[in-house]
Amino acid sequence: MTTSQKVTMFQIALQQRAASVEALLADLLSDMPRNGEISRPPRLMAAIRHGVLNGGKRLRPLLVMESAALFGADNLAALRVAAALECVHSYSLVHDDLPAMDDDDLRRGQPTVHRKFDEAAAILAGDSLLTYAFELIASEETELDAQAKVALISALARAAGLGGMTGGQALDLQAENDNPDEEGIIRLQAMKTGALIRFACEAGAIVGHATAGERERMAEYGSAIGIAYQLADDLLDVTANATEMGKATGKDAAAGKATLVSLYGVEWTRQQLTGLVGQAEELLAPFGSDAALLKDAARFIAERQS
Amino acid sequence: MTTSQKVTMFQIALQQRAASVEALLADLLSDMPRNGEISRPPRLMAAIRHGVLNGGKRLRPLLVMESAALFGADNLAALRVAAALECVHSYSLVHDDLPAMDDDDLRRGQPTVHRKFDEAAAILAGDSLLTYAFELIASEETELDAQAKVALISALARAAGLGGMTGGQALDLQAENDNPDEEGIIRLQAMKTGALIRFACEAGAIVGHATAGERERMAEYGSAIGIAYQLADDLLDVTANATEMGKATGKDAAAGKATLVSLYGVEWTRQQLTGLVGQAEELLAPFGSDAALLKDAARFIAERQS
Repeated sequence: MTTSQKVTMFQIALQQRAASVEALLADLLSDMPRNGEISRPPRLMAAIRHGVLNGGKRLRPLLVMESAALFGADNLAALRVAAALECVHSYSLVHDDLPAMDDDDLRRGQPTVHRKFDEAAAILAGDSLLTYAFELIASEETELDAQAKVALISALARAAGLGGMTGGQALDLQAENDNPDEEGIIRLQAMKTGALIRFACEAGAIVGHATAGERERMAEYGSAIGIAYQLADDLLDVTANATEMGKATGKDAAAGKATLVSLYGVEWTRQQLTGLVGQAEELLAPFGSDAALLKDAARFIAERQS
Repeated sequence: MTTSQKVTMFQIALQQRAASVEALLADLLSDMPRNGEISRPPRLMAAIRHGVLNGGKRLRPLLVMESAALFGADNLAALRVAAALECVHSYSLVHDDLPAMDDDDLRRGQPTVHRKFDEAAAILAGDSLLTYAFELIASEETELDAQAKVALISALARAAGLGGMTGGQALDLQAENDNPDEEGIIRLQAMKTGALIRFACEAGAIVGHATAGERERMAEYGSAIGIAYQLADDLLDVTANATEMGKATGKDAAAGKATLVSLYGVEWTRQQLTGLVGQAEELLAPFGSDAALLKDAARFIAERQS
């Protein structure tokens, strides 16, 4: 098969997994109170669903599910952990889009939550989604032992919090003034986008009760594709247009924000991406053909056009 | 002893517990990266500490620690769960104070986080604190079995999320337009402020490995004092002045927002408070003198002047 045929097959698999996780999220995030809840405010729920059920690629859920499958893990438990991670990812986008943060009007071609509803609804929708992610993993309906749940919650909170995603977002907001060097940019990106992608792959290993060594291997694979994800994103900010991306582009350059692409150029970045795909494939080598889809995921991330 | 002597003794106990939880939070939320964190952005950490280490009464932590002590539970584990709950409470105040929400400039006599720093810092500080609460409970350093941790995380997420605190805040923002009736106001308040106080008391029972019946009894005690807390708050909004409260007062009336005080008057509210204190004391009766401080807590909440 050619690379582009592989990417197309991967996209079909991605769409299948996306449909599963969206069906679960639509059910979980309906207006109907459950598990002893007093009430679910309909307008808040509508804002939450607008922030989650928006045609996202669901790359992180796929990484959770495929990583769990490597270790023969239960599909439904992995799907619920994948949905929890997508709640965290969605909350981060809803808050990042706020006027006080990146101030974006569009997300995947649709108005952002604060544009469609209002800022208060967007803040509360994000807060609710973040909280719900932990509820979902801890839930009795998620059929995992308590130790695996605690390991997942601990790893997710560390990836999403002050030493991970929110810390990285804080560094990113300061980057326009701080002008970080290469080391600073790498650290910022590892925290802002890398930590959650790394968690996705590690989470699959936890759900599958992998050994400590296997868990570390999957986390390293996650780190490699997390770096690739951000490099591809920075490339697209330079090369794509807003219609393809469904959001504003060229913003980093306009804001005078340094990226590795702006420091080292497009050609260097493409070479780095090739190297990272190779690294990801090496890490997955012990799993043989079982890891074919995860290898394709690395290539898809490095080559994506939107 | 007179009631006012009891309240004074309670306040001394409250200050002692507050000092413990603040010392722990100051240590946990320092600038120093820990547990494999890549980095802690200093400005984000400063915003977080401004939102948490601000001389709050630490009522919820006291409820966790005293409830746990009823069941002979380990002090340090209870203290860490208490600190996690205070992170959730603090995050909710930081976000509630934002311009898009209640738009408050002062909190306990100090500038709110978005006034001292900026809106983006306040959003990220709140997000980080909420995430950190779950990290803290799940942490290996919190010496509790995995089942207790999962029970705590599940109950906390339900109390803080879309069927609890954030849901209640969403209802509260709509209340100016919706004009809820008595039932609607009670539901809103049970979610917005009641759920987290209920959790505080239930959490102590979980940390102490109480029976299901004892856990339910502590949750009911928490519900009673949670209602009392909100009624006392509504009374103070009518009767106190901004200097005593360290924040703006009379805001509900100015916003045309209905409270049970505005519906039924000050005298009715005082009678309700007396009834709730009696109910709390009855629920604690089986614990005898071990529950003396929790009985005082109910009275303190009903009678507080700030």
